[in-house]
This record gives sequence, C-alpha cells and structure tokens, in this order.
Amino acid sequence: MKIYETKTAPNPRRVRMFLAEKGVKVEFVQVDIQKGENLTPEFKAKNPMGKVPVLELDDGTCISETVAICRYFEELYPKHLLMGRTGVERAQTEMWQRWLEMYFLLPTGMCFQHTTGYFKDRMNPVKEWGEDCGKAAESFFTRLDNHLEDKEFILGDYFSIADITALCTIDFNKVNNIRISPEQKNLKAWYDRVSARPSAKV
Amino acid sequence: MKIYETKTAPNPRRVRMFLAEKGVKVEFVQVDIQKGENLTPEFKAKNPMGKVPVLELDDGTCISETVAICRYFEELYPKHLLMGRTGVERAQTEMWQRWLEMYFLLPTGMCFQHTTGYFKDRMNPVKEWGEDCGKAAESFFTRLDNHLEDKEFILGDYFSIADITALCTIDFNKVNNIRISPEQKNLKAWYDRVSARPSAKV
Repeated sequence: MKIYETKTAPNPRRVRMFLAEKGVKVEFVQVDIQKGENLTPEFKAKNPMGKVPVLELDDGTCISETVAICRYFEELYPKHLLMGRTGVERAQTEMWQRWLEMYFLLPTGMCFQHTTGYFKDRMNPVKEWGEDCGKAAESFFTRLDNHLEDKEFILGDYFSIADITALCTIDFNKVNNIRISPEQKNLKAWYDRVSARPSAKV
Repeated sequence: MKIYETKTAPNPRRVRMFLAEKGVKVEFVQVDIQKGENLTPEFKAKNPMGKVPVLELDDGTCISETVAICRYFEELYPKHLLMGRTGVERAQTEMWQRWLEMYFLLPTGMCFQHTTGYFKDRMNPVKEWGEDCGKAAESFFTRLDNHLEDKEFILGDYFSIADITALCTIDFNKVNNIRISPEQKNLKAWYDRVSARPSAKV
C-alpha cells in the first residue's frame, strides 16, 4: 500500500503522526497541491474530491479522508489504540476529534484559504468570512487552554488522535499568524509535551 | 439514557434515522435552538459547543456530535451494522460519510445560515460566502446523481449511514430552495427508495 500526501499540509501530517505513534511504516508519494497535481484526472480517479491524503491498497482500492485512513490502520494494528479503548472512550474521543475538526481545523483552513487567496485559481476567497474564521480559530486556543488546566492530554491521561489533530492545527495556524499566547500556560505545557513526541517530527 | 435534540434540524434527524434502522428506542428531549435553549449554561454543561444532538448516559456522561453518538450505538447494537461490515467497507463508508458531511451537509448548513441570517443574533452572516456554499451544495446533487447511476445505495448494495446523511441533507436543502431536478433520474430513484424506508419518517 501507499499514501499520496503533501508534506506541508495539515491533514497528511495527522496521518503520518498517527502511523508513527503506531510504529507502522507506509510508502509516501508526494503530490504538489499548489501546482494542482491533485486536480489531474489521474489523481481524481483515486479521490474525486481532489484532496490529500489518499491511501491506495495493493488491490487498487483507494481510501481518502484522514480519519477514514486512520481508523483503517487502527483496526489493522490494534496495539496502540489512538481512537479510544472502550465504547464510551471511543465516543468521547470521536466527539473531541470532531469538535477539533469542525471548530478549530476547519476555521483554520478557511482563514488561510480566504484571507491569503492561496487557492484563488480554484476558489473564490471571501475575505470577511476568512477573518471571521480566524477569530473562531483564535478563540479555540483559549478554549483548549481552559480545558487542559488539569489534564495531561485532551482526553485526560489518554493520548489520542484528538491530541494529534490539535497539534497539527496549532502548528498550521502559523500561516494565519495565530500562535499560543504567553498567558495560555496550560496549552503551552501540553504543546511542549506533545511536540516532544518522536511522532511530531515525522 | 436520553437524547437532547431539535426535531427540525438535520443532525438530530440523522441520529433518529440511525436508531430507527437499528430498532433502538431512546427517550428524546426537545431543545428549541431558535429560542437559544442550546446556549444556556445548563445546556452548555452537557455540550460546551451548544449544539444538538447530545446523548446523555444514565451516569450523566454526555456525548455530542452526531457520528460519535451513532458509533456508540453501532457498538452497543451490532446487529444491523450501518457503518460498514469489514475493515475496508468501514473505511469506505467513513470516506463517503465525510465527503457528504464536508462537501454537502456543511455547505448546505452554511448556505442556510449565511443567506437567511436565521442565527444572526449569534453569528455574522456573510452573504457572498453563503451563496458560494449554495452553489457547492447544488453541485453535489449532480455528483450524487452520477455516482448512483448503477447503484442501489451510496455504498453499492449496502445501505449505510452515508445514505442517511445524504437523505437528511437533501431534505434540509428545501430551506435553501435547492431540490432534485427532473433530469437527475438516478438520484430521484435512490431518493424515493430511501425515503420509503420507515426510518425516514421518524
């Protein structure tokens, strides 16, 4: 199997970090999304939405969407579970994971796309919307700081895919010039803890 | 256990339909989101994001996010699996589910919120963005019509949560005045098939 991805994009990094935590090695193939290599007919045959990452199995079956790929590996390699260890924990992990995606990663990406015009050859950037998204992303830093007051990880003492999504989103916010502020001490301590994991460097 | 929900909103309907397909009965408590009952301190103690639906377990644990709730029930009641029956099918179901959420349900909701100003007491509607989202939602009708050419359901011959998400999104598009057009024959046949299921009426 192999994974088509773009080294600098936040979603592929989530998959790389997830696999590194599990100790699973997969071949990666780089796709230049700025040049539009994800919009060719060849790539769209693998993912009609034209997005990275895409996992291609040996029989040619293609799975796209970050979390669908992660869950596939979670089942294949159940040793270091990152999506919950019990039914309730799996539900709480998915809840947090989706909060992070919907109220943090999504506005982060929208702020980037709508305020910079990075993909203006293929979409209509709406500056006012991008700015609102930037504010939403920024306010989530505060929410995380409050949440992490008495916790090692987002799910308490359990390191999960939610921490991976949060880290990748915080790091990607550099493109929006949004960073952890000095008074966000809980978030900073969590950030230092998670960033120090070997998986954060892949 | 009980589920806090709003009868007219698309996400709670996804959960009701999912449970009906499984034959699971749960107590429902109505929350009036137009009046802002989801924004009270009491409700935000259950879901800090202030969204419906929320599943409350008997011990007080709260799970929000539609798919986190569905997956919890999928594990509790594994008889009629709606999220895939094998590892690859689960990955493909989640892929489609997320495509439908990100490229269909999300722009559908954004079109509604940003063009009508329904929630303008709590957000800033950006009309140009709402209109772009309406076009995106409309183009997904065409994508689905093409995809369903030779298929009974979105995952082929397997009825899944992806069909539930697609049906709820299509029906909710009435608020955007976007409907299946007469030439979308595959989509219309699928829609009639899925709408006829008893679960579509709950």
